[in-house]
Formats: sequence, C-alpha cells, structure tokens
Amino acid sequence: MKAIVVLSGGLDSTTALYHSVKHYHEVEAISFNYGQNHVKELEFAKFHCAHLNIKHTIINLDFSCFESSLLSGGEDIPEGHYEAENMKSTVVPFRNGIMLSYAVGYAENCNAQDVILGSHAGDHTIYPDCREIFTHHMNAAAEAGTYNAIQIVSPFNHLMKWDLVRIGSALGIDYSKTWSCYKGGEKPCGKCGTCVERIEAFEKNKLVDPSDYE
Amino acid sequence: MKAIVVLSGGLDSTTALYHSVKHYHEVEAISFNYGQNHVKELEFAKFHCAHLNIKHTIINLDFSCFESSLLSGGEDIPEGHYEAENMKSTVVPFRNGIMLSYAVGYAENCNAQDVILGSHAGDHTIYPDCREIFTHHMNAAAEAGTYNAIQIVSPFNHLMKWDLVRIGSALGIDYSKTWSCYKGGEKPCGKCGTCVERIEAFEKNKLVDPSDYE
Repeated sequence: MKAIVVLSGGLDSTTALYHSVKHYHEVEAISFNYGQNHVKELEFAKFHCAHLNIKHTIINLDFSCFESSLLSGGEDIPEGHYEAENMKSTVVPFRNGIMLSYAVGYAENCNAQDVILGSHAGDHTIYPDCREIFTHHMNAAAEAGTYNAIQIVSPFNHLMKWDLVRIGSALGIDYSKTWSCYKGGEKPCGKCGTCVERIEAFEKNKLVDPSDYE
Repeated sequence: MKAIVVLSGGLDSTTALYHSVKHYHEVEAISFNYGQNHVKELEFAKFHCAHLNIKHTIINLDFSCFESSLLSGGEDIPEGHYEAENMKSTVVPFRNGIMLSYAVGYAENCNAQDVILGSHAGDHTIYPDCREIFTHHMNAAAEAGTYNAIQIVSPFNHLMKWDLVRIGSALGIDYSKTWSCYKGGEKPCGKCGTCVERIEAFEKNKLVDPSDYE
C-alpha cells in the first residue's frame, strides 16, 4: 500500500508522516505554498522528508483572490486561545477542501491508495473544513471521483494533540524542527492560538516544547 | 441569491452562465488556467463575461505534477468517440474535485450561496469526477465545510448536450464564441471526442454548429 501524507511542517502532520512510514509500504509527502505568512513551515517539511528519504512535492496554490489574516498581506494574526471569536479571521475559505482535492489527484496520479491527514479530535470547529463531518463527505467524494477509490485516512481522529506529542516522541521525532506559529516571525511567537495550544500539549506530557520561542 | 459559475468557455458552462444570469440576483464566473492544451477556451470565457458585464476571475492551477494528454507537454489527444478506451489518456486526476473546491472557497469568500456547474446527463463515465455520485458527495463536503453551507448546483443534470444547445440558442448565445476542442490548434479539429459530440448536438436540433472547423 502506498500513501500520500499531507504535510504542512507542523506538529500534527509531521507526526502523521512518521506514523505513516511505519504503517505503509511506500510513502510520499505533499505540501502547499499558498502565500501563508508562516511559509517557513515548508523548510521543516523538507527537513523531515530528506531525513526519512521520502519524495516530497510542493504545490503552489493561487490564493490571491481569498482574504484571510493567515495569508501574507492580510491583517494581523490575533493572539490568545483558539476559542476566541477573533480567530475566525485566520480562516482561509475551504482551504482544506482545496488541499485535500490536490492530494487526492496526486495520489491517483502516482497510484497511491490512501491520503493521510494529521487532523485530530482537538481540531477547531471555527474551521468548518476541519470538522469530522467534512472529512467524511470529502472521503466519499474522493472514493467516487477516482479510479483507485482513494481513501482519506485520519489516523488520529479520536486523539488529542497531547496524544500526538506522546506518539511522536516515541517515534523519535525532533519537534524542534516543526513549525506551528501562524505568524511569520524569525522565531515562533508563543502567543497565537497554535503556539498556546502546542505548549500545553507538551506540558500535558510533562515535556517542554523544544521550540525556541520569542 | 448570488451564484458562482464554473466557466471553461465551452458549450456546457457557457450555457450554464447565461442560464444563471436569468435565475440569480447576482452572478460571478470563475475559470482555471491549468496548463490545458486548449487554453484558448479562456478567451471565450472572457468574451461572454464582458458581454454580460459579469465579474470574471481566472485562477492559475499548478498541475505540473500530473500526467494527462489534456495538459500541454502530454501525449497527443486521441480522435474518435468518447466511448473509446483511449480517451482515458485525457483524464486529469480529480481535476473537477480541485476546481470545484476552489469555486466553493471562492463562493464562501465573496458570500455567494451556490456554485453552478454545466454538467449534464451525457457527461462521460470515463471521468470519475464527472459522475453524479461524485458531485453528490462533493456537494455534501461543500455544505459541511463552509459557513455559508455552499451548494453545488447542476441545473442540467437530467438533460443531454443537445438540450443545452436548444436552451442556449433560445437564450441568444453566440456558440461560435465557445471552444470545446481538446487540441490546441488555431481552429477546432472536428475529430476529437468533444468536437464529434458537439457537432452531433447541433445536428439533433437541426442546427449547424457555427464553429469554424479545420
């Protein structure tokens, strides 16, 4: 079985990459350059693919007609927990739908059977295209719309981010080489929704997040 | 109600454009430049949007990692009817999934409710992502994955291509300004699957296809 991992270079998808290498005969990774402020994450995606000797494809997405604070040229990224209403400005409309569709097409093109997502039970309902019901329907569309009946697999669907830190640490992942921060600074800010959450996920495991925060 | 029409510049989607202008309060069109041999179709898409005074957005899709005879640099486009097995070479993996996802994101971004597709009952099952079951699931994914619960609407779902010619002719569409041919020639070839089918659709209406064939 061959799998294509959707790899951002963040904690969740990097954990999914290492997990997939253990569970599939062959693995490739696909990443997206979509004008994100935090394009730095792609350097980390590259690092892990080189480390694992995995083919890595970066696809350029034209999101110039979309508005979001997550995109360069957008407004400032809000700080604080994800629950806050203002995190809504970070939504890129149907971003995951677009990326998943590309990954499904890529999988079909290179004769893979599964597309792997690092999504988990702690993903936020402020992003409609992170909800489990969305992935469920998207999977049905992928299965119907490809010769290979491609499946979208979320191995961490019933786990929380701190579970991923536990699993990934056991797999020997160097989490200092992952990027979660939504700002595009030299170092992660430690204050935006993703940073706050990530720090807590390590604390729950009595670990210290190895990121070099501002 | 506002609708976004997925417009290729071909016969089907151009008919959907004129049909939507009649049925919606506001209409925009979205087209894709994906390295297709027949990129010429975009000139016709532009023509009709200008004619109808409709906002038109062209999105660049990076399909450089996909193989298909439909893409520039691919093998030759086969000739003859669609049913032939060799038309399979024109499949671009999950192309419609990718385009529809973009259209759904675009619709969400500009506060539209519906995405309009010119697909019809004569679309070919050699393209898995043209099948009705695919659009059904994709619609469910769009609804679940957006705040606006975007709907994908195929108004011609139970009609054949010749019905579209009848409807569009009544709407006054100048079909000489649409492009269906899969080859990138100066004039349409009249021999590939789309050309053959289009000529027949006019004949069924006792009309002559106004295209200037080779």
